[in-house]
Amino acid sequence: MTAEPTARELRRALDEGRASVREIVETCLARIEADEPRLRAWAHLDRDYALAQADALDQARRAGRAFGRLTGLPVGVKDVVDTADLPTEYGSPVFVGRRPARDAWLVGALKAAGAVILGKTATTEFAAFSPGPTRNPFDPERTPGGSSSGSAAAVAAGMVPLAIGTQTNGSVIRPASFCGIVGYKPTYGLIPRSGVLEQSPTLDHVGVFARDLGDAALLAEALVGFDPQDGATRPQAVPRLSRAAEEGMPVRPRLAHVWVPGPDRAEPAMREAIAELCDALGDAVVALEAPPVFAHALAAHRTIWTAELAFRFGRLVRERGELVSEGFKEAVREGERVSAVDYQRALAVRARMREEFSAFMHEIDAVLAPAAPGEAPGLESTGDPVFSTAWTLVGAPALTLPLFTGPSGLPMGLQLVAEPGDDERLFRVAAWLERTLAASEPAS
Amino acid sequence: MTAEPTARELRRALDEGRASVREIVETCLARIEADEPRLRAWAHLDRDYALAQADALDQARRAGRAFGRLTGLPVGVKDVVDTADLPTEYGSPVFVGRRPARDAWLVGALKAAGAVILGKTATTEFAAFSPGPTRNPFDPERTPGGSSSGSAAAVAAGMVPLAIGTQTNGSVIRPASFCGIVGYKPTYGLIPRSGVLEQSPTLDHVGVFARDLGDAALLAEALVGFDPQDGATRPQAVPRLSRAAEEGMPVRPRLAHVWVPGPDRAEPAMREAIAELCDALGDAVVALEAPPVFAHALAAHRTIWTAELAFRFGRLVRERGELVSEGFKEAVREGERVSAVDYQRALAVRARMREEFSAFMHEIDAVLAPAAPGEAPGLESTGDPVFSTAWTLVGAPALTLPLFTGPSGLPMGLQLVAEPGDDERLFRVAAWLERTLAASEPAS
Repeated sequence: MTAEPTARELRRALDEGRASVREIVETCLARIEADEPRLRAWAHLDRDYALAQADALDQARRAGRAFGRLTGLPVGVKDVVDTADLPTEYGSPVFVGRRPARDAWLVGALKAAGAVILGKTATTEFAAFSPGPTRNPFDPERTPGGSSSGSAAAVAAGMVPLAIGTQTNGSVIRPASFCGIVGYKPTYGLIPRSGVLEQSPTLDHVGVFARDLGDAALLAEALVGFDPQDGATRPQAVPRLSRAAEEGMPVRPRLAHVWVPGPDRAEPAMREAIAELCDALGDAVVALEAPPVFAHALAAHRTIWTAELAFRFGRLVRERGELVSEGFKEAVREGERVSAVDYQRALAVRARMREEFSAFMHEIDAVLAPAAPGEAPGLESTGDPVFSTAWTLVGAPALTLPLFTGPSGLPMGLQLVAEPGDDERLFRVAAWLERTLAASEPAS
Repeated sequence: MTAEPTARELRRALDEGRASVREIVETCLARIEADEPRLRAWAHLDRDYALAQADALDQARRAGRAFGRLTGLPVGVKDVVDTADLPTEYGSPVFVGRRPARDAWLVGALKAAGAVILGKTATTEFAAFSPGPTRNPFDPERTPGGSSSGSAAAVAAGMVPLAIGTQTNGSVIRPASFCGIVGYKPTYGLIPRSGVLEQSPTLDHVGVFARDLGDAALLAEALVGFDPQDGATRPQAVPRLSRAAEEGMPVRPRLAHVWVPGPDRAEPAMREAIAELCDALGDAVVALEAPPVFAHALAAHRTIWTAELAFRFGRLVRERGELVSEGFKEAVREGERVSAVDYQRALAVRARMREEFSAFMHEIDAVLAPAAPGEAPGLESTGDPVFSTAWTLVGAPALTLPLFTGPSGLPMGLQLVAEPGDDERLFRVAAWLERTLAASEPAS
């Protein structure tokens, strides 16, 4: 499934005149036409809109304009991100036909960089747990993961080289793992969220999916920015992720293998895969215990998530409850029972986790962890985000690398995590790891 | 009571060799010795410590060092601000004898600027509502206001030219009004709060007291800074408050008189004083209604304050309740009953107030409002902070100017408020106002 060209290869073909944007977009649309009935990765597609963007970009290229870093590259955008040109329905029947007046900040950034908004990808209901229609490209009887189900499946199936997801718990890292692609959730606040459905402002992140590390870097770089409307963002230099992915780590990194939570939450195949990887890397990896306060991560995440969800969705659940899933309603009701004191206590756990994680990472370049408990489960759920929860709560940058294969031949991802703000280092370590493993494999 | 030299005059006397720091400090100590039994403005005084600082500064001056902007100026520091050299007891018997290991950020800034930490000023219990021992210098049967009672009284009584206070509701603006001095509460986040007792991080501000506008500017400028430990602070240029106070407004300002809450909360004398002032200023003032969302200010402030208080003091109240006042315990219990949803709703009211206030101030330089309902009441309370509540909630910079005299001959203050971030403009307007009124008064 990874025979398709990367976004960077497509860029090169465009730059060298070997392809037009229209050809690239038509190839994507053809692939979608063939596989969409089986995979159901898309919430909204408008063939004419996609081709009109392509033609406009080709014309601009001929006129000598259009040098954005994503020029001509098709991107799938999760259907919780506002687009003025396409509906945005949040994966919920409550919002059928909803058409935002304005693009989300990140959609503006995509357009400014020259990307083609290929369409909106399917999401679980309100980017929470109730599965959407999407199937796993490796096995249609399995989930692609959630909540960024369509984005992960579309990239994995070669329908689009790049896609946007969001993560409030494990919604980028886990579907990337289940779909055998690269997923990247940047440091909290790196990518502005204005115009993205708010679940929990303390936990919501924008992330990206791509076929390889360099593509993930390319896309993410175009999305970093300061947005006064998003209090989590800061004016800051754009991390040079592409350069980091290209150059790799200039020295042998110091890696820590950490179980958060314990190994009992992972399947045997994942435990073995991680153990083998650690063996292969030898003394580059040390096994460490997470700081003690991490024991409170799951409970604190749950408290913050449900409380912030209840504030935003309480009224909707009361007024349109018949169109909302039971699971979502239960989470909202749980949040309505949280006291302000417990909510602040959970936020204080998060603050302490950030401090202690920072100290923990003092001599560590990155953490190795599972991206999910194992292979993708069946369609009744979107899988367990538990191996992302703590890292999302601390706002650490995290990557899924599709390194492992499970007992059913399905992909399983390794998760790499760095200190918040250390996104460049995360990409350097990931590139080092890929090269080190490639060098140690028998040549094919 | 304002015959004492200003801090700037003391600075000049030092610079010109007409005084030593020791002489200045001895003058303060003599005044304290005379009036402290009557006023009880100080929680901790250490004569030797104050004189040792003075001697060290005099020596440094002779050696050609010590050019800090506050060099040799005695400052009273509210006893909720940590000092490593003096006890910090929060106005509570629970913390008798407490001696912090480190100075608060702002105490470090004072020392760096060359100030003499003269002593710790009395505060209400935990900077909340239960009166401390301090009396009003104008009438010992009246409150000096709270919670920065000792700081306001000490400056008003000429015991010290400068003092530090804090404000979570009206604890700088109101005591300055009752004591006939200048009080200044800067924009939220301008002065770092690390090492200051936390009541409510969303509402807590550091502020200053001085005999005139220029002194308030001088002191506040030395305290502005970025402190990574205080999430409300940002790296930013120090506002040029002294210059603003000196130059005044280069054009006739556009002022708005606003009642938040309604005029029924003020005493007749304050209503008349404000009306007369507006008359005197003619078309420089327009009477405006506050944006509608301000109607929720008092309730939102109460929700945030009690909820954040409960998180910080719940355990103390449970474990040491016998040493805590009933009023404080009731506020904590009230906060324990606040739900996370209502807490977030109150924070959302604050966010909307900030937005609407910003739009409201589009063509307005400053708001004129009462600094308190009227003259200082008796000793059973510290007076009503209600005319500060909304401005504190939006984090707007506010000043008390001692412009009025009430029916009992006691001072009453005018409050000036500007948009958050517009502290320089606030000082320009205040200077303009003082000069305009001085020019219109019959020469004495």
